[in-house]
Amino acid sequence: MDKQPKQIVFEELKALLHERVVADEAIRNEHGVGFSYHACTPPDWVVYPSSTEEVAEIVKICAAYQIPITPFGAGTSVEGHILALKGGVCIDFKLMNQLLEVNQADMYATIQPGITRNQLDDTLQDTGFFFPIGPGVNATLGGMASTRASGTNAVRYGTMKDNILSLQIVLPDGKIIKTGSKARKSSAGYDLTRLFIGAEGTLGIITELTIKLHSYPQAIYAAVCCFPTVEAAVNTAIQTIQKGIPIAKVELLDAQMMMAINRYSALNYEESPTLFLEFHGSPSELEEQIAQVEHIAQSFGAKEFIWERDEAARTKLWRARTDAAPASVALRKNAQLMSTDVCVPISKLASCITSTQLDIEATGILAPILGHVGDGNFHLTIVIDPNDAEEFARAKALNKRLVERALAMEGTCTGEHGIGIGKLSYMPLEHGDAINTMWAIKKALDPLNIMNPGKLLPAQD
Amino acid sequence: MDKQPKQIVFEELKALLHERVVADEAIRNEHGVGFSYHACTPPDWVVYPSSTEEVAEIVKICAAYQIPITPFGAGTSVEGHILALKGGVCIDFKLMNQLLEVNQADMYATIQPGITRNQLDDTLQDTGFFFPIGPGVNATLGGMASTRASGTNAVRYGTMKDNILSLQIVLPDGKIIKTGSKARKSSAGYDLTRLFIGAEGTLGIITELTIKLHSYPQAIYAAVCCFPTVEAAVNTAIQTIQKGIPIAKVELLDAQMMMAINRYSALNYEESPTLFLEFHGSPSELEEQIAQVEHIAQSFGAKEFIWERDEAARTKLWRARTDAAPASVALRKNAQLMSTDVCVPISKLASCITSTQLDIEATGILAPILGHVGDGNFHLTIVIDPNDAEEFARAKALNKRLVERALAMEGTCTGEHGIGIGKLSYMPLEHGDAINTMWAIKKALDPLNIMNPGKLLPAQD
Repeated sequence: MDKQPKQIVFEELKALLHERVVADEAIRNEHGVGFSYHACTPPDWVVYPSSTEEVAEIVKICAAYQIPITPFGAGTSVEGHILALKGGVCIDFKLMNQLLEVNQADMYATIQPGITRNQLDDTLQDTGFFFPIGPGVNATLGGMASTRASGTNAVRYGTMKDNILSLQIVLPDGKIIKTGSKARKSSAGYDLTRLFIGAEGTLGIITELTIKLHSYPQAIYAAVCCFPTVEAAVNTAIQTIQKGIPIAKVELLDAQMMMAINRYSALNYEESPTLFLEFHGSPSELEEQIAQVEHIAQSFGAKEFIWERDEAARTKLWRARTDAAPASVALRKNAQLMSTDVCVPISKLASCITSTQLDIEATGILAPILGHVGDGNFHLTIVIDPNDAEEFARAKALNKRLVERALAMEGTCTGEHGIGIGKLSYMPLEHGDAINTMWAIKKALDPLNIMNPGKLLPAQD
Repeated sequence: MDKQPKQIVFEELKALLHERVVADEAIRNEHGVGFSYHACTPPDWVVYPSSTEEVAEIVKICAAYQIPITPFGAGTSVEGHILALKGGVCIDFKLMNQLLEVNQADMYATIQPGITRNQLDDTLQDTGFFFPIGPGVNATLGGMASTRASGTNAVRYGTMKDNILSLQIVLPDGKIIKTGSKARKSSAGYDLTRLFIGAEGTLGIITELTIKLHSYPQAIYAAVCCFPTVEAAVNTAIQTIQKGIPIAKVELLDAQMMMAINRYSALNYEESPTLFLEFHGSPSELEEQIAQVEHIAQSFGAKEFIWERDEAARTKLWRARTDAAPASVALRKNAQLMSTDVCVPISKLASCITSTQLDIEATGILAPILGHVGDGNFHLTIVIDPNDAEEFARAKALNKRLVERALAMEGTCTGEHGIGIGKLSYMPLEHGDAINTMWAIKKALDPLNIMNPGKLLPAQD
């Protein structure tokens, strides 16, 4: 009798990677859920390749037997991207975490996908350059590219889609291609780089990235400023952007989120809608920008300004903001986070947030809000009891109404978290017939449907 | 006997569009070449739809009889994008040139593809906003999107790919889809917007664009500065960018190009490598930036600075730069332009330009150079005698060596002109096996190969 395909795949993977194929249950479970609220769905095996060539060989083995592949970075995804819905192989990029080149003259770095943003920041520290994209967790750059991540600096520096020059990709048949070039711009053919960014591993696997670096600012000033209402805070952000002030960060925390971070870090900020701001430039530019923004904020009734011009104070200020998610979870014992985000045109943001606050209150759910308001993007850090099915259902219904509200405002069901499985059901409402175009691309590039199957695209009729 | 498919298509188009189907030879010829050096290859008919729905109907008729479709904007393409290689229908977007909405709060405009950049500039004039992308000709926005155009402002504001939120597309089967949303960012699914930008009409037809607007700068200063060498000029640009100075334009003209514009416009600039610069910001920011750039330029031996702070002088200065192409053609009687561009990592730019200058000299061809040096992008305005086949062959060989030089430097065969047919032969060298991925997408979306066939992708074996 022939061996089972799964057994053959396991043996072939073992022959290729030896002890870097792991079937241990604890390890498999660690790779089956990420930071999402979904039930753990582990892969059959976790493999740890150390080179692009090994990734290509793994893919060829899986393609030969139609075994699903799920790429894995740091496991920080919040929408279930890494659940092995159909089992198969999880490719963990832990061993492919090197910075391969820093090109100072051309302001780019070439990196492996398993490098985390903290590792990258550390490695770049003495170069005079930095990479501006940072989600609220220590994700890998491969994962950030695959979910089209952004974070606090996006209002000035863009998202992952704006900061990648070139990718190396292992295709679903195991072939290796390079997208883009080292040139800053190109009109040569289809933009495959942007196609693989945000594709969540469903079209191929990112095995190398060439990312744009930015000059470290001459000076960085930060500020905290609280407002009587969400509208006042959002209007301050809108007017700042409309005046062309190149603000680097403009983060909104609602009153409940301010309460959460006060408790978590023993701070005593006023518990009202608050903007955390940051400015990058020369000291004189920053003084000018600060004066303008302070003037705008005051015209909207801002209550108090705290400016931080030195690094230690600034770091402390941003630490409070960065801790927003753990601070939210800490509001409740044995709680779990259901993190969600939407993005709307900025003129609709205040209305979207305030309607959502009323909805949260009516639903009786704990859900502090924070937003990258310069982009119109905000998050609900919904804090749930994982053992309370009724509450879980209420939280999911709240999330659904949030997304429908954002889509009715011509926004999107996710600004920076991605679809995974958590937002799958909203794809038809957001994209209409464009879903069929996405499916046509998926089928053309991954005809066996082995690349992270069941993610990003809802099943077709 | 059945009618010929072509006759049926003509009759169906007539029934749909009446007098807006034109088979007149002069009109067809006007639509068969653009600003390219290729032989005119006219379509069978030119049609003038007035709505997306009409475009969809035209596409359905063509799809039913496998008749090729070539979209047409202003006819300013330089690489043969609009040649009707297999005849068929040319869709001229002249009647679809409306600005549909300016949303000031959300800083976007929704436009039809046939609007030209001059029309758009005029329409936006009193809004306080502008659209930063402008090639050297009065192209349509649909054409600019389709070729991933950029221009002088790209160093600060990016290219077409960075400045479009959403597209409406008529697919090759006549279905209408919308890509993206009105939100500033999204992680919801494949980036179809970026896929259609730069696709040169080979995957579908752009029938509406939602573009990002930018606040009109508080102040604009411009400068001209000449250098002893190309290296000195390029190094000034590199260091300016590395220092994070947000320069808005940094254009290099070589000595020959300076001679051309001096003659064309009766100016008396020094005929040596020259940078044309522009800065956008508040007056005090600009004074600071100017001082920094002047210091950098002087450290590289800049000879003379002319700063222009008022609008009339600035307009005159940029007029000289804008006239670079006609000024080049005017150097020679009855001459024709063969315009080409490449883009390389900026550290390779000086070497790429100086090698190219030596090559031009050795080839005995007239080819002034100008470059968007902040992006590493430069143009050769090759001036040829259209009736001299031997010279034409030498010019093509020069172009080939230019592209090969750029690709050897990890650059791209075109920074902003696109592939059309002029750069087709370089696609395999630049993209390797990624060409197969592009073909897979093309076949999936346009299985009948009716959308601008023969462009962008070289024929497969």
